[in-house]
Amino acid sequence: MHSWIDGQEATAVNLQNRGLAYGDGLFETIAVRGGRPSLLTRHLDRLALGCQRLAIEVDLTLVRNELLQFASQLGEGVAKLMLTRGDSLRGYAPAVGAPARRILQGGPLPTYPAQNAEHGIRVFPCRTRLAEQPLLAGLKHLNRLEQVLARAEWQDAAFAEGLMRDSQGRVIEGVYSNLFLVREGTLLTADLSRCGVAGVMRAALLEQAVALGIPAQVRDLALSELEQADEVFVCNSVYGVWPVLEFTSLNWPAGPLTRKLQAVARTLLDT
Amino acid sequence: MHSWIDGQEATAVNLQNRGLAYGDGLFETIAVRGGRPSLLTRHLDRLALGCQRLAIEVDLTLVRNELLQFASQLGEGVAKLMLTRGDSLRGYAPAVGAPARRILQGGPLPTYPAQNAEHGIRVFPCRTRLAEQPLLAGLKHLNRLEQVLARAEWQDAAFAEGLMRDSQGRVIEGVYSNLFLVREGTLLTADLSRCGVAGVMRAALLEQAVALGIPAQVRDLALSELEQADEVFVCNSVYGVWPVLEFTSLNWPAGPLTRKLQAVARTLLDT
Repeated sequence: MHSWIDGQEATAVNLQNRGLAYGDGLFETIAVRGGRPSLLTRHLDRLALGCQRLAIEVDLTLVRNELLQFASQLGEGVAKLMLTRGDSLRGYAPAVGAPARRILQGGPLPTYPAQNAEHGIRVFPCRTRLAEQPLLAGLKHLNRLEQVLARAEWQDAAFAEGLMRDSQGRVIEGVYSNLFLVREGTLLTADLSRCGVAGVMRAALLEQAVALGIPAQVRDLALSELEQADEVFVCNSVYGVWPVLEFTSLNWPAGPLTRKLQAVARTLLDT
Repeated sequence: MHSWIDGQEATAVNLQNRGLAYGDGLFETIAVRGGRPSLLTRHLDRLALGCQRLAIEVDLTLVRNELLQFASQLGEGVAKLMLTRGDSLRGYAPAVGAPARRILQGGPLPTYPAQNAEHGIRVFPCRTRLAEQPLLAGLKHLNRLEQVLARAEWQDAAFAEGLMRDSQGRVIEGVYSNLFLVREGTLLTADLSRCGVAGVMRAALLEQAVALGIPAQVRDLALSELEQADEVFVCNSVYGVWPVLEFTSLNWPAGPLTRKLQAVARTLLDT
């Protein structure tokens, strides 16, 4: 796997890196097509927001330029971009003036079964609940033990995703994705101000929905709303949209709004 | 700083390390005196519990032996031991059969102002709240962004520690330590089943309190109980016990039970 640290080829990171010590950093997983990062501005905007909220100082123009150069060398695949707060010795207080580390790792596009996009997926009901931490909610930070625990709950490859809820039982997201419901023509997705990762594809689809005149609501979602949904789908910035066919005893068709937004996502990823 | 990975001298860790990618691992910060790790069994027991709860497979006898050898070379100082789940490519699912990484880093004993132990400390009131996640509570895992955010709240060196509360406002712990109150001769410390790090010194002091006939309670602590406390102190496995003199508008003396347990902690660290 091709990788850079601070613009230089490197395969290992110093043991003093605060990403390793504390998960003190952020990441983005970015599809690369034809040598270009998909949804570039959205990924960089989320990263900028994360840096602001975690007070990580970094030259985002440099990050952008490195990413563009890295993607151009990668051609087709996925670029993982990590930003970690500057290296430091033991202790939670950061070293003054230590520069943030810019880490890029490239890999092939994942080979998902074609049926995930074409027909839809089954979703596993994770018991691991997301803790409510407004200070970190929405960010794609490096503290991801909840996702690790949730993903470890199932081995059956029949499940392409797992559904995560918060401590109150509200429906939040997939382990790897955001979740949307469709009910009577309205798009619904969870409010992520207490927990969850605000995916760039989620943001892009919400914006496109407005442009297409599709009513959309971001709000708390009770589990019972899944029963009332006409369609359910998951999305992320690598595969776009997958219809959800089955979750516990519930079933949905891969419906028309899902298909419409799947096409939108495909266009967003390809351009 | 002297460091080993998997028993070999190394200063850098592979970019595929899951400690870096997800904070998928555990750590222990261990005082080393005269070439021996203090509170060794307690540190290893907590690590074993963490491995069990996170399903990280590791040969703990090997970890112990490496730590003993490392400490013997270090002589006097602090050994930081990290265990991370095996390296893997992108994705929360661990690579099957990838061995956990054993990371050891050595450094000098921190040079705290002598007055911290002799007179006591001022504690900063952190606004960062600890999220409630029972699956991770008590563990010293590598997802420590809450502590990073809390520690960033104050720069004034007059504060040697910060007090962290949970989302309900209950008193939990210090950023670097556990907290005890003394009220009418009874020792009180927070229940850590929803959040917080169950420190090895906290466990040792609770056990010693029983042996010394000091009544002790582990339970939820309201902020108002600080007002009613006769003594307050913090503890960890590097410095032992520091009396708390001041928190917001509250003041306490470095009282007799604090001094007694400070002496106990000193003995525990020295033997």
